[in-house]
Amino acid sequence: MESLNARKSIRKYSGRELTDPLLFSLLKQAERTPTMGNLQLYSVVVTRSREKKLQLAQAHFNQPMVTDAPVVLTFCADFRRTSLWAEHRKAVPGYDNFLSFVNATTDTLLYCQTFCNLAEETGLGTCFLGTTIYMPQLIIDTLHLPKLTFPVATITLGWPDEDPPQSDRLPVDAIVHAETYYDYSAERIDQAYAYKESLPENRQFVEINHKETLAQVFTDIRYTREDNEAMSERLILAIRNQGFNI
Amino acid sequence: MESLNARKSIRKYSGRELTDPLLFSLLKQAERTPTMGNLQLYSVVVTRSREKKLQLAQAHFNQPMVTDAPVVLTFCADFRRTSLWAEHRKAVPGYDNFLSFVNATTDTLLYCQTFCNLAEETGLGTCFLGTTIYMPQLIIDTLHLPKLTFPVATITLGWPDEDPPQSDRLPVDAIVHAETYYDYSAERIDQAYAYKESLPENRQFVEINHKETLAQVFTDIRYTREDNEAMSERLILAIRNQGFNI
Repeated sequence: MESLNARKSIRKYSGRELTDPLLFSLLKQAERTPTMGNLQLYSVVVTRSREKKLQLAQAHFNQPMVTDAPVVLTFCADFRRTSLWAEHRKAVPGYDNFLSFVNATTDTLLYCQTFCNLAEETGLGTCFLGTTIYMPQLIIDTLHLPKLTFPVATITLGWPDEDPPQSDRLPVDAIVHAETYYDYSAERIDQAYAYKESLPENRQFVEINHKETLAQVFTDIRYTREDNEAMSERLILAIRNQGFNI
Repeated sequence: MESLNARKSIRKYSGRELTDPLLFSLLKQAERTPTMGNLQLYSVVVTRSREKKLQLAQAHFNQPMVTDAPVVLTFCADFRRTSLWAEHRKAVPGYDNFLSFVNATTDTLLYCQTFCNLAEETGLGTCFLGTTIYMPQLIIDTLHLPKLTFPVATITLGWPDEDPPQSDRLPVDAIVHAETYYDYSAERIDQAYAYKESLPENRQFVEINHKETLAQVFTDIRYTREDNEAMSERLILAIRNQGFNI
């Protein structure tokens, strides 16, 4: 996994074709990822059509890579296939609950990340779209997702046509705790965020947004309480509509 | 990622030491995984002490690999560090909601899976414990997890001392959908599960459990409605206790 050290999100893709045989071989290889009771509680919807990409883009703040990428993959938590299997085998499934939603979401995200690691090692570029859970109902409608399925991750995928700079990461000491959670003093917070706050691009980010600190750009502009609370309500409603009791 | 093709869950570990430098280098390398707004909404608690392993084991149905593994890692969704950072930087965080819980859970699971892929490529063995969300409060208490953190994944880790057979997987066609969700007919279910149901170990599994079909082993014994519903309630309560409004 040498590719990981140089890993960047790729949002611009070349015209080189991403063939189905390659795509399916990666999707198949990623199936080795561990999964609950070996049930594989996920499905992947492959979007190649211009029409569907345009529809999906609306759910992803019209970010241009959704329409520009040769392939968009929507990774869905899926207890439907397992439940149907049970029903066809004289068994009575009981997976319309919150635990099952989280179980399927877990399976799906682990599978998705192995897929991304594999794809990137093959030289493909990916961009993970956190917007998937912002307007889930629009994605559900677009992809005709039935009850007991839910979109939890989207990636755009293709051969890279850009080489952006790598983004910074926190020092590993800032995320690791020995034996019990070692809570963050003001000093430890300073240490953890000093490098991030010192970067010219982040200083510029603060300036452009007319804020005093980098943290304010996140709390006041990018991820506000108001947006988070409105999207939480929509997310819970959509989960409930898909048949998971929450 | 050649290691992935031969990948198995490893539950027995040799006496060979797993050093902190190796562990930290893998935890650091895994930080390249994409994350929401580059906020890295996760923490990892490293358990090496016998005492803590014994406590954690209770939350994991006393599965022996929890006490036998040299290292147990609990991957926690963490909006606390980001929120404290904000508070120390004249910003007002708004992350005590369900969307933020899912955002942090997503970051954490993606990070966890990259870590596992890296560890396995190094020759380490891992076992993913799905039990983490079954009795989360016990883990929260054991690891002293504060508000706005939540345990979402646990792995046991060490140098392998066993070479178990690989478990089966569904044909890739069974999990992939072109353009829209292609719902499962009885025939497609048969195709998807034929291989799994044909395996001697799965036939034996049905017999030992005195069931008629493999699906019944899952619905009636391993993952029952009753258990799922009781654990859903506990999970929601624990999430709420950790300060995420749900």
